[in-house]
Amino acid sequence: MNFYEFKNYKSLVDSELDNLYSNGPKLLLEPINHILKGGKRLRPLLCILSYESIKDDRNSEILSIATSIELLHIFSLIHDDIMDDDKMRHGVETIHTKWSIPVGILAGDAVLALAIKKINKSSKIISEKFNDGLLKVCEGQALDVEFESVIDLDINEYIKMINLKTGYMLGLSAQLGSLAAGLDVKSSSSYMDFGLLLGEAFQLQDDLLEIISTKEQMGKSLTSDIVLNKKTYLYINAYKKFPEELDSLFNKFKYDNSKLVENFRNLLYEKKIIEECSDRIDSTFCNIYKLLDDINCDKNKLSIFVNNIRNRKF
Amino acid sequence: MNFYEFKNYKSLVDSELDNLYSNGPKLLLEPINHILKGGKRLRPLLCILSYESIKDDRNSEILSIATSIELLHIFSLIHDDIMDDDKMRHGVETIHTKWSIPVGILAGDAVLALAIKKINKSSKIISEKFNDGLLKVCEGQALDVEFESVIDLDINEYIKMINLKTGYMLGLSAQLGSLAAGLDVKSSSSYMDFGLLLGEAFQLQDDLLEIISTKEQMGKSLTSDIVLNKKTYLYINAYKKFPEELDSLFNKFKYDNSKLVENFRNLLYEKKIIEECSDRIDSTFCNIYKLLDDINCDKNKLSIFVNNIRNRKF
Repeated sequence: MNFYEFKNYKSLVDSELDNLYSNGPKLLLEPINHILKGGKRLRPLLCILSYESIKDDRNSEILSIATSIELLHIFSLIHDDIMDDDKMRHGVETIHTKWSIPVGILAGDAVLALAIKKINKSSKIISEKFNDGLLKVCEGQALDVEFESVIDLDINEYIKMINLKTGYMLGLSAQLGSLAAGLDVKSSSSYMDFGLLLGEAFQLQDDLLEIISTKEQMGKSLTSDIVLNKKTYLYINAYKKFPEELDSLFNKFKYDNSKLVENFRNLLYEKKIIEECSDRIDSTFCNIYKLLDDINCDKNKLSIFVNNIRNRKF
Repeated sequence: MNFYEFKNYKSLVDSELDNLYSNGPKLLLEPINHILKGGKRLRPLLCILSYESIKDDRNSEILSIATSIELLHIFSLIHDDIMDDDKMRHGVETIHTKWSIPVGILAGDAVLALAIKKINKSSKIISEKFNDGLLKVCEGQALDVEFESVIDLDINEYIKMINLKTGYMLGLSAQLGSLAAGLDVKSSSSYMDFGLLLGEAFQLQDDLLEIISTKEQMGKSLTSDIVLNKKTYLYINAYKKFPEELDSLFNKFKYDNSKLVENFRNLLYEKKIIEECSDRIDSTFCNIYKLLDDINCDKNKLSIFVNNIRNRKF
């Protein structure tokens, strides 16, 4: 993903995060500052660009809101990585791997506390939307765990889950940017819709890229979702259409993860599941462009942002 | 602990909690409603009584603030119980025991989200103090974990940790009650000091009762703190005065928890460590009464509350 145009924005957020937490117990200071270093800062970028689509006087308040959103995202990653036992994140070891599960739980809690403290400095309606988002993200994650044990998951249920888990935070990023720029709540909801749809496309891309990218490109383990029996768009579609082939494949290679991944990948190509997913992503991006067209704002930078997401390879 | 005088207050908080979360994913609904049922509701009670020491028109706002504090407390318990692998809480199974660690992490996060949503309905200064408290509680818990690997812990470091972990939330309960009753921030700080000291006494009592009470009275496992090498006031004092006796005892019974607890308890009685702790608790309560005397308010109910804590047997 090339966000070269926006590298100054990323630096601004990075520097807010660098100076965020410098005084506290060692067991929070070290892991928090370890994990705050990585990441593409997509959500704060979307927040600032949404603000700038309405107003061009970027100030410290919007930067603070954008940083709060990144902290909310990082909190959810720290806890998700414990739940899925993911070892790597943004190219570095996850907190519970480098330290321990208790330290991971606590560092996640503290990052959330920092997010809440920061967002509370903004207006009541911005804090309120932020707090609603926090609960939605937890609910999305709970559905994700719940779905691990559902064999024949409906694709619409999956979409509902990713809207909560991934979409809502992108929607929130765009909406808070527009609220900070002075939009009323009603008008700001188009920004939420835009971000939600972008989140859907983003998650479907993630599902696809996890299968077709290399480990180095994704910066996290390829196999964890498959081994954990995580539902993805590809898995659900494959299972719906070819349940027997899939069962026999998972049975045959249950003790050999790398063979399992390889054969699963081949099946997805052969049966054109990859192609179908790719088509759905394209049509979602069409809808995103339409939505953006309908919003009365300066879409220039937001369009570049959407294009960059669309063309991402990891 | 007999809070018979205040049973109506407890019912009010219980009923707020009963109606708090009735619509959401099954994997949040069930564990959250399971864990919200138990507990003495000490913190919300302290909050409401602090309010009533200034104003006598109890309203829905103070009830909502009190409930938010209880939710903050429950969030921290859910996550602490995972970290310590405690199996029971308030006489029922802990969430990570009855479900799983991922469900425990998530349910804790969601309970915190509910707390934050609720407190955000109050004034900015009340949310701000609440959010400061959230970070302090995380920091206290981090110190608690950090201290597990410190052999020769200083008693003042321990007191600092319990002030953050336990005291701050009681201080917050009293302070928010006073702020909601209209006190300015400066005057409300005496309520914080009062609650902090009460928290210190409460934690020292916990340390003591864990050794001298029965399992049934405490509603949680007796041995977990000792086995986990958790620092308690008694352990730190015993180690400072009799390091060799303690080392040999922990060595001798390292494979027999019940013998270890029994012999540790005997040593604490013989060496008068129990007596010294009991004296310190008494002198802390003297300071609490003095502090309460200095606050210009109707102390009647707060005094009954303090007396009930002082006389608690579990």
